Amino acid sequence: MASELSYPKSKINKVNRLGERGNYECKAVHEIIAGSPVVHVSFNPGSLEDYPVILPMIGKLGSFENPSADLTEPLDLYLHGYVSSRIMNTARKSANGEPQQPMKVCVCATKVDGLVLSLTPNSHSMNYRSSIVFGTVELVTEPDEKLYAMKLITNGVIPGRYDDTRVPPDGAEMQSTQILRVTIDHASAKIRTGEPGDYEKDLKREDVLNKTWTGIIPMYQAYGEPQESSYNRVKPVPEYIQNYVKETGETEKQYALTAISKPSAGKA
Amino acid sequence: MASELSYPKSKINKVNRLGERGNYECKAVHEIIAGSPVVHVSFNPGSLEDYPVILPMIGKLGSFENPSADLTEPLDLYLHGYVSSRIMNTARKSANGEPQQPMKVCVCATKVDGLVLSLTPNSHSMNYRSSIVFGTVELVTEPDEKLYAMKLITNGVIPGRYDDTRVPPDGAEMQSTQILRVTIDHASAKIRTGEPGDYEKDLKREDVLNKTWTGIIPMYQAYGEPQESSYNRVKPVPEYIQNYVKETGETEKQYALTAISKPSAGKA
Repeated sequence: MASELSYPKSKINKVNRLGERGNYECKAVHEIIAGSPVVHVSFNPGSLEDYPVILPMIGKLGSFENPSADLTEPLDLYLHGYVSSRIMNTARKSANGEPQQPMKVCVCATKVDGLVLSLTPNSHSMNYRSSIVFGTVELVTEPDEKLYAMKLITNGVIPGRYDDTRVPPDGAEMQSTQILRVTIDHASAKIRTGEPGDYEKDLKREDVLNKTWTGIIPMYQAYGEPQESSYNRVKPVPEYIQNYVKETGETEKQYALTAISKPSAGKA
Repeated sequence: MASELSYPKSKINKVNRLGERGNYECKAVHEIIAGSPVVHVSFNPGSLEDYPVILPMIGKLGSFENPSADLTEPLDLYLHGYVSSRIMNTARKSANGEPQQPMKVCVCATKVDGLVLSLTPNSHSMNYRSSIVFGTVELVTEPDEKLYAMKLITNGVIPGRYDDTRVPPDGAEMQSTQILRVTIDHASAKIRTGEPGDYEKDLKREDVLNKTWTGIIPMYQAYGEPQESSYNRVKPVPEYIQNYVKETGETEKQYALTAISKPSAGKA
């Protein structure tokens, strides 16, 4: 069996602090992004007194060249937005060489799976999964790739949603939507699981052990019952939506609970 | 009654796209950050081929000068980390004028409150709350302020936790922990509530209305029952932890549900 495809370690993506929590496999990096309703995208607009900017956005992974590729394979990250928003203006300016060419971004997806309560503040932690991607941005201009990305993004939120809506987007919608393709140059995931990790110096102290409760508070993204709009006519809630809510909610909860009994890497 | 304190609008923090969702009040901006288990912090290390970097971190608001200040008042954002991590190395280099002096960051906290399913992909959205802060970083070197921040951060995760643990941090822990104080230079929140916002062109189409379910799938951060560590001796789970889990879980769920019936600003 072939080993998992991984992102090469470089000075850019290497997990330095608590490196034993690092994971460079495409599958691990991509799964966290695929399971996150929003990702955070950072870029330098070059016009804001040197502040970088972060935006919460929907980001979905896919390959226009190889549309059947799964999360274990090389993929691009697609972002979409209103054509005249700050990030899209920056991307268009970068395509013309200003302020940098090409435009570079860092994208981060994070899921918090639990609060880790230990004996002393410094050893407190969280169970979490995060993926950090460093990438190069290109404007998607071909209508075929744009439609591919629109479908990818919509179905990335709820599988099967795109074809159940009024499609394709009309001319005005195609014009007002800008799609960005982020080529992933470097990426890594960092994952903490397991129970608290306390220092020997505290584990030896009877007074501390007898005073302080230690353990994990599981946390997970939960989903409520779908609530219809005031103008909805379709009843009952379609099965693909009900299944999505049920399955995703259960998966999230189960992950948070099973993460506790997995090995933990590193103190705190 | 005095009106709420607000961050001044500037070209840096102004919500351009769907500006009617923008909120500049200290209370709104601060509440989203205070209620987020992690924030995303972006900075420019100046050494990574021009990529910005994003890190998920714990970030808590407080005022060392005015410790009784609440979320409606001016506050600083405190971050903590291992002394030799990339962000701390960058902060120390910046204090010496390299790569920029002072170090500037963008910090974003985001909560997803629901998936907004409408008639056509372009009008799909999410109910969400996000705060974006642009700030200037200073290293905290005074032990009193460092201890203030450590307590703020620990109690910001679970109120009352700090004094229930082995404190104060010892010499090695004080040495290995670097605290950053972010002065908030510009900030704004962006909030979407309400039901889907569909275009007139789709609301007029019987075929579309009869085919596509529209509504909201509520989403919220949920908490499971606290799970004790293998070496825990304190039984039962202390009341302040049980209360935190119960109250925070209920608040999160209630927000997501009530957000649906609030007015919605802007299409999509």
